[in-house]
Amino acid sequence: MGFWKSLFTTSEATSEPKQAASDGYIAEASRADDSARVFFSTDRTIDLYELEELCDAVGWSRRPVRKVRKAIQHSFLVVTMWEQQGSRRRLIGFSRATSDHAFNATIWDVVVHPDFQGQGLGKALMKQLIKKLRSEDISNVTLFADPHVVDFYRQLGFVSDPEGIKGMFWYPD
Amino acid sequence: MGFWKSLFTTSEATSEPKQAASDGYIAEASRADDSARVFFSTDRTIDLYELEELCDAVGWSRRPVRKVRKAIQHSFLVVTMWEQQGSRRRLIGFSRATSDHAFNATIWDVVVHPDFQGQGLGKALMKQLIKKLRSEDISNVTLFADPHVVDFYRQLGFVSDPEGIKGMFWYPD
Repeated sequence: MGFWKSLFTTSEATSEPKQAASDGYIAEASRADDSARVFFSTDRTIDLYELEELCDAVGWSRRPVRKVRKAIQHSFLVVTMWEQQGSRRRLIGFSRATSDHAFNATIWDVVVHPDFQGQGLGKALMKQLIKKLRSEDISNVTLFADPHVVDFYRQLGFVSDPEGIKGMFWYPD
Repeated sequence: MGFWKSLFTTSEATSEPKQAASDGYIAEASRADDSARVFFSTDRTIDLYELEELCDAVGWSRRPVRKVRKAIQHSFLVVTMWEQQGSRRRLIGFSRATSDHAFNATIWDVVVHPDFQGQGLGKALMKQLIKKLRSEDISNVTLFADPHVVDFYRQLGFVSDPEGIKGMFWYPD
């Protein structure tokens, strides 16, 4: 903490972007020493092998690139997080949501590279995602949280089993 | 139970359809006395006021028709259930799912008219929905169940909080 000039507690960019980062650019922060900056994007033109590397880094099982491409294409919203140092840009976070574009959204595949965890960036990524969903008038934002991240989501305002509603998964016989 | 010739325990039609019920026709059953039949459809051309009536009948809060139309349009799959008596067709059940078309689907808005509850038709509707999702190679079928329907879904093979995964809802501050 304190590593970044802004912890993205608001979703405003901390400064005017120095350059058009990419289509879908939504916010950024610079390191305290200006050696790097982090920005968020809703652009879906992602190198899927770079995404695979990111998912590998947190130990997720590999998934067919063809299916990942399809899932991204048919997600309602994709928010990525990038570190930029000079002209070098590195994918350091990813998240996406499915939705009916009207009432409900469900968040999937939230990942932050281990090198960038513990700095408030996961929270910042989620705040960007939630803000975008709310701006699209989605009232019901949901997710399924693994046990070790339930507290992370709780801090962001997520409530587990509200009014006894249970998350359920179908398993084939 | 025993009211219908078939409880749709398989998703096969119990007989050859006597007429093209509608686009998206997927299965049917006839009453034991042949006075009526029930069929399922994935066709989305639904009278939204008839759907509203169905939702009213189970006491759901009204939602703007404009948003319901958008939600149906952007759902991955809609499965409806109809009773047909002679030329009269009545909407008696509804369900839909959002999806990324690749990995995950989430089921929303499952409703069966009270006059048709307790006859195995809700289960039949869900089985049609799950079968269609599985045929599209969706491996992760999820939902959020109100407390009074958790057992209903459990009987269909849904598991709550598997491996400690928690369903969570975001609430604005």
